[in-house]
Amino acid sequence: MKTVGYAAYSSDAKMAPYHFERRALRANDVAIEILYSGVCHSDLHTVNGDWGPQSYPLVPGHEIIGRVVEVGPDVQRYQVGDKVGVGCMVDSCQACDQCDHDEEQFCREGVTPTYGEPDRVNGETTQGGYSKHIIVREEFVLRVPDALDLSRAAPILCAGITTFSPLRTWNVGSGSRVGVIGLGGLGHMAVKLAVAMGAEVTVLSRSKKKAQEARALGATGILSSTDSDAMTEAAASLDLIIDTVPVQHDVSIYTPLLDIDGTLVIVGQVGPMDEFMTIPMIMGRRRVAGSLIGGIKQTQEVLDFCAEHDIHPLCEIIRPDQVNEAFAAMEKGDIAHRYVMDMSSLSVES
Amino acid sequence: MKTVGYAAYSSDAKMAPYHFERRALRANDVAIEILYSGVCHSDLHTVNGDWGPQSYPLVPGHEIIGRVVEVGPDVQRYQVGDKVGVGCMVDSCQACDQCDHDEEQFCREGVTPTYGEPDRVNGETTQGGYSKHIIVREEFVLRVPDALDLSRAAPILCAGITTFSPLRTWNVGSGSRVGVIGLGGLGHMAVKLAVAMGAEVTVLSRSKKKAQEARALGATGILSSTDSDAMTEAAASLDLIIDTVPVQHDVSIYTPLLDIDGTLVIVGQVGPMDEFMTIPMIMGRRRVAGSLIGGIKQTQEVLDFCAEHDIHPLCEIIRPDQVNEAFAAMEKGDIAHRYVMDMSSLSVES
Repeated sequence: MKTVGYAAYSSDAKMAPYHFERRALRANDVAIEILYSGVCHSDLHTVNGDWGPQSYPLVPGHEIIGRVVEVGPDVQRYQVGDKVGVGCMVDSCQACDQCDHDEEQFCREGVTPTYGEPDRVNGETTQGGYSKHIIVREEFVLRVPDALDLSRAAPILCAGITTFSPLRTWNVGSGSRVGVIGLGGLGHMAVKLAVAMGAEVTVLSRSKKKAQEARALGATGILSSTDSDAMTEAAASLDLIIDTVPVQHDVSIYTPLLDIDGTLVIVGQVGPMDEFMTIPMIMGRRRVAGSLIGGIKQTQEVLDFCAEHDIHPLCEIIRPDQVNEAFAAMEKGDIAHRYVMDMSSLSVES
Repeated sequence: MKTVGYAAYSSDAKMAPYHFERRALRANDVAIEILYSGVCHSDLHTVNGDWGPQSYPLVPGHEIIGRVVEVGPDVQRYQVGDKVGVGCMVDSCQACDQCDHDEEQFCREGVTPTYGEPDRVNGETTQGGYSKHIIVREEFVLRVPDALDLSRAAPILCAGITTFSPLRTWNVGSGSRVGVIGLGGLGHMAVKLAVAMGAEVTVLSRSKKKAQEARALGATGILSSTDSDAMTEAAASLDLIIDTVPVQHDVSIYTPLLDIDGTLVIVGQVGPMDEFMTIPMIMGRRRVAGSLIGGIKQTQEVLDFCAEHDIHPLCEIIRPDQVNEAFAAMEKGDIAHRYVMDMSSLSVES
């Protein structure tokens, strides 16, 4: 299938149009016309080679919303016209213990990400959602509930599941006291999801200038990490902290805020973190953990949960030819929303 | 009650004899003649002022084995002649949620440690086990089972409970795969306890020179952190790691050894740890935690467990007047046993 997208041609170049061929439909494949494609900070890191060398041209994108345009003969669950999504994964071994209990993100053989690594069948580098079409095996296609606005659903597939999964792993529910560090793409979803689960949510931010925004998302309070009196007073007041800060920082500022047996979950920074102090951890059996997206079953669950609770990420709709501007804005940081590309202006014929 | 002990008179002086008065027996107090007193690395840190300023003279010691010599009128559970122990705590509020569920070490009002902080009733600085007698309220006195050798039981009250508690918190049992970093006072107890719980235990050490010692303790293997091939091969092979290393170090060497959802528990280093990498944590939802001794109920449980499984710490018996030599040896580090003082040579009359 001929398609077109935006690709990086090297680690230091800008994104530019790229005409390429999607694989021929396999028996269990679903062909999707992409309607909306979210722009994730990790796309920028990946195409820049921050996380290792890449093969170029590379089409990033793993927050994909579209419509089924064709299905292989063995496909059971989808038909032409269905509203569907694709997230960060497009394949896994489907046989190991992790795949067996719906945690394909931890597949023992290594999951196949939506872009930038070899397809398990033909070995070609997978290409992501900054494109007009994608072909994905049925098991990795999600159903988009009718109640979701298609133009604002894409970030649920990465920012949503990345924050939903730890909220579920650490059993957040009514009465849970949750802190969210950072109020960007991940952070604002963490707040909305935790509030919908019944938690009391505190936003942790450098300053209080985001207080109004935090309250609008449903947070009950905002705590400034530079206000040492307030930080001392808030000691041991949280059960779980979702740390979405995407740069190296010091977790020891935050661990004393956890109650006994509380956990700070890192979902933002992929790389080194500062020296940390063991005292708050030892003195309250506190924990620091990481968490990685979620399995396919849980990704479907977060889509359904967002539909049920009318949760949509804050999105700014852009055209694909504005992606370089979006990347530049993201590099400056601190954007409390996601850029989502409306792919309708992209044409295979152009 | 007149007694005698060994005290630090300042942060830079040696331990020297100290004649002092124990409080008059309260209604719920147990008076104990101390028979054996373990020497813990934290005693050295505390008297040296490494963890904050102290009030001197200070008698350290929180691994206490003795016999009841007198009881207050309200004491229910002990009588004169009973073999008893006292660990790291001698009082707590007895009213908060933590005390209520047998985790006095996390008492919301702050636990009263066996030495170095104000007694909750009279405000005098508590004095520890490097002495001939101690007076402790009944609720903080442990029963020493008959099957334990009194001369080798004292370190169970600190090194034992410190490693037993995380093994229980993280549900170690038959088939668990446990790693133990370091083979000193804490590490060797961690190995023995985990083996007795049915775990398969791997000792993690800089070199393999401790392989024989590890096997003698019941470990099935030893892994050298400097053998990069072996470390790579051992990736994701452990459910829990007990990290007993008492100095600043890098946990990121070890976190990749954890299986998905595995936890590394810091029990040795009180202070800063190196920069750490988030990737192994994110990519396997791995966790780093701290743990602090255990509650009184669990301390009784570890004494009973050691009696049942014939577990004794490796002890070297010394006289109280040898404590400065023991401190000097501990400062050099890497001692795979605990020093235990036989208090019989100490006399109130001398």
